Amino acid sequence: MTAPLSLSSQANRTSASPISYFIQKAISTPGLISLAAGLVDESCFPSNDISAAVQAMMADPTASKAALQYGSTQGYPKLRSQVLEMFAASDASGLGSALAPLALNNLTPDDVILTTGSQQLLYLLGEALFDVGDIVICEAPSYFVYHGVLQSQGVRVYSVPMDDGGMRMDELEALLHRLEAAGELPRVKLIYTVDYFQNPTGLTLAADRRPKLVEIAKEFGRSHRILILEDAAYRELRYEGSDLPSVKSFDPSNEYVIYTSTFSKPCAPGLKTGFAIVPRELVAPICHLKGNHDFGSSNLAQHILSRLIENGAYARHVLSLREVYRKKAQAMLRSLEQEFADWPEVRWTHPRGGLYVWLSFPADFDAGDHGPLVERALAEGVLYVPGQFGHVPDEFGNIPKNEVRLSFGVSSPEQIAEGIRRLRKACRGLEKQRGKGL
Amino acid sequence: MTAPLSLSSQANRTSASPISYFIQKAISTPGLISLAAGLVDESCFPSNDISAAVQAMMADPTASKAALQYGSTQGYPKLRSQVLEMFAASDASGLGSALAPLALNNLTPDDVILTTGSQQLLYLLGEALFDVGDIVICEAPSYFVYHGVLQSQGVRVYSVPMDDGGMRMDELEALLHRLEAAGELPRVKLIYTVDYFQNPTGLTLAADRRPKLVEIAKEFGRSHRILILEDAAYRELRYEGSDLPSVKSFDPSNEYVIYTSTFSKPCAPGLKTGFAIVPRELVAPICHLKGNHDFGSSNLAQHILSRLIENGAYARHVLSLREVYRKKAQAMLRSLEQEFADWPEVRWTHPRGGLYVWLSFPADFDAGDHGPLVERALAEGVLYVPGQFGHVPDEFGNIPKNEVRLSFGVSSPEQIAEGIRRLRKACRGLEKQRGKGL
Repeated sequence: MTAPLSLSSQANRTSASPISYFIQKAISTPGLISLAAGLVDESCFPSNDISAAVQAMMADPTASKAALQYGSTQGYPKLRSQVLEMFAASDASGLGSALAPLALNNLTPDDVILTTGSQQLLYLLGEALFDVGDIVICEAPSYFVYHGVLQSQGVRVYSVPMDDGGMRMDELEALLHRLEAAGELPRVKLIYTVDYFQNPTGLTLAADRRPKLVEIAKEFGRSHRILILEDAAYRELRYEGSDLPSVKSFDPSNEYVIYTSTFSKPCAPGLKTGFAIVPRELVAPICHLKGNHDFGSSNLAQHILSRLIENGAYARHVLSLREVYRKKAQAMLRSLEQEFADWPEVRWTHPRGGLYVWLSFPADFDAGDHGPLVERALAEGVLYVPGQFGHVPDEFGNIPKNEVRLSFGVSSPEQIAEGIRRLRKACRGLEKQRGKGL
Repeated sequence: MTAPLSLSSQANRTSASPISYFIQKAISTPGLISLAAGLVDESCFPSNDISAAVQAMMADPTASKAALQYGSTQGYPKLRSQVLEMFAASDASGLGSALAPLALNNLTPDDVILTTGSQQLLYLLGEALFDVGDIVICEAPSYFVYHGVLQSQGVRVYSVPMDDGGMRMDELEALLHRLEAAGELPRVKLIYTVDYFQNPTGLTLAADRRPKLVEIAKEFGRSHRILILEDAAYRELRYEGSDLPSVKSFDPSNEYVIYTSTFSKPCAPGLKTGFAIVPRELVAPICHLKGNHDFGSSNLAQHILSRLIENGAYARHVLSLREVYRKKAQAMLRSLEQEFADWPEVRWTHPRGGLYVWLSFPADFDAGDHGPLVERALAEGVLYVPGQFGHVPDEFGNIPKNEVRLSFGVSSPEQIAEGIRRLRKACRGLEKQRGKGL
């Protein structure tokens, strides 16, 4: 008889991603139109640019040795410097500033850490900060994969309602006051915002809320610092309007805001390279942890990206990606207007970037993962992500089930139009049932 | 006034690698011969093969999409299958078996996980198994980077003496009996062995100890399973003799042994790809944790490796690497014999593979990191890793300081010979001092 395995407390808190089932469905159902996965459009990977970059690198003995040897835990210094320049340029553009970009925050490449996608940064930061029972404040809804990390790390999550301007600052303050009254303020470690074209809603944090968010963190972080995690994964994918300054830009002393982003969305997920700009005091704790994880992410991928940035291929690629996704976003919004014109209670966001539209049915309509819509939609041949995965239970244990995340990332404009038609068709059956039931 | 950062208990347990200082020294001291770093010889990276593989992949639309899109958390299925075939072939050769390789253990690619180097597997396995205060049994000495992981994960480490046949099984049994008598057996989760050309000693676990190790784990794992972590990072780098069967091969039900290895040493660290074959019950817990870390290591690197294996470049490369390292190992052993011929108390291992030779001075000679030899060696222009980093304090709090890890990985045979001359020269001064002091 084999003795039983004895797993850690953390392993016992850790579960599969709630959308594993949906990914499996998408793979195993022929003809299914997926409006679910946040994958990247496959027709426009920069494969020629990557091929050329690798060839040039491998033909140069110095470059090939540098790319194929171990790198450093913190990441390739040149790419860290490039990342910082791009960040500063975005912020200068967002601020409409005439400042020399790098003067913005007195940041240096030593404040930058390169990671295995931005996901690894989310994980490492939690390891550096959280003990079991600590509190993180998220948007409602928020990035559901991060909820999984927080659950695994034993963290309690409180959430703040959003409106068209993203996380509501009045609601954030009210929540912090409630936590303070309950004696829980000492456990609040972090406020998490996906502030550009959020996953899952597509909403962006309004300009005037950005400095306000830093002020609130400072105000309530008295006995210890309350940090802000600014997840800017979708910032590059902007299809309309001008860039907004980062929350990080309102942290000139580099003490409050961790800014993280990724090359997965604007370049290629296969390179699995993300980055973060972190308060100087956090660099060593995070790098020590990362040293134990892997002592450095794929060095080859970092060298490839550095070349693509240097020779202009990366910037060109982002511009062309924006064109592709802009058309898809328009296709989705146009179809929603057409198909749901006769059901005015249904609302959806109008994102100016990113990969997602957030659809809200009337409050009593069940679009959840055990509800009837998801099954009917599958029967019609369209897959979406139930919005409930983006929520944590509120103070009464409730989770809204009337919401849907739609992604226009992988499907073509024609498939998107057909997918929305199928979704509407799946709803019609249920409207009737619902009408009968009432 | 900025409020202080509040780090996690784990962050407070986590420190920089003890050899950071040595790496920094090596980089910043011109003319220094490094016998310290376990880096890979830079003159023989497979850069042309990698260039060709990437070109072919990027020119093929299906292949390039597969390599540049997100992969899966567990890793590229084809590479998992190739890894398993190579493992089975090594074991068949090690066992001198006529069995069809894959029948060896009833293993399937579903039992394989691809990671960001084998380091990530070491980390993830600990997360899956350990709570603070649990016990891991290591060899004395052992891989010091793993000691750092265990310290960060709050684990207590006990160690087992080695001889020329690696970890002593009688000492392991005695330790387990002592732990049992102390009521600590329920906390023992794992026995860790680097069983091929160990880092840091170069020693290999003897053939007859391999099945014995599994028996002992079974015998003492009564209330819960005691697992074995077989770190085979150096297995491919064999310069003499025939392969030995893995410890894993004595676990036909796939319940006791986690086998891990890496492509960093036999191919290129820049690809940062490792793998593990794990008991079926551990696949989901580890993959759920890895999903939170990064939902998959660099997919591009996995696709590159798969191509190199398929087209034979990987196998050719391993053969040529063995030739290069064999000469370096011989250069180091020859120089040691010449330089230390007049000091017969000094002993060293005679590894048949790997990257390391372990040198033992007389017990009262201080080669430790605050001792005189390391400074004098630096003054002579040679760097080594103090052996004490591979040890944990014994039951009386003592750590031997008379040992030295020498690596022949990065330096040329000529540099190695010169490095050993310099090391001997650094000792001579100290012999005199020591003579005086006695």
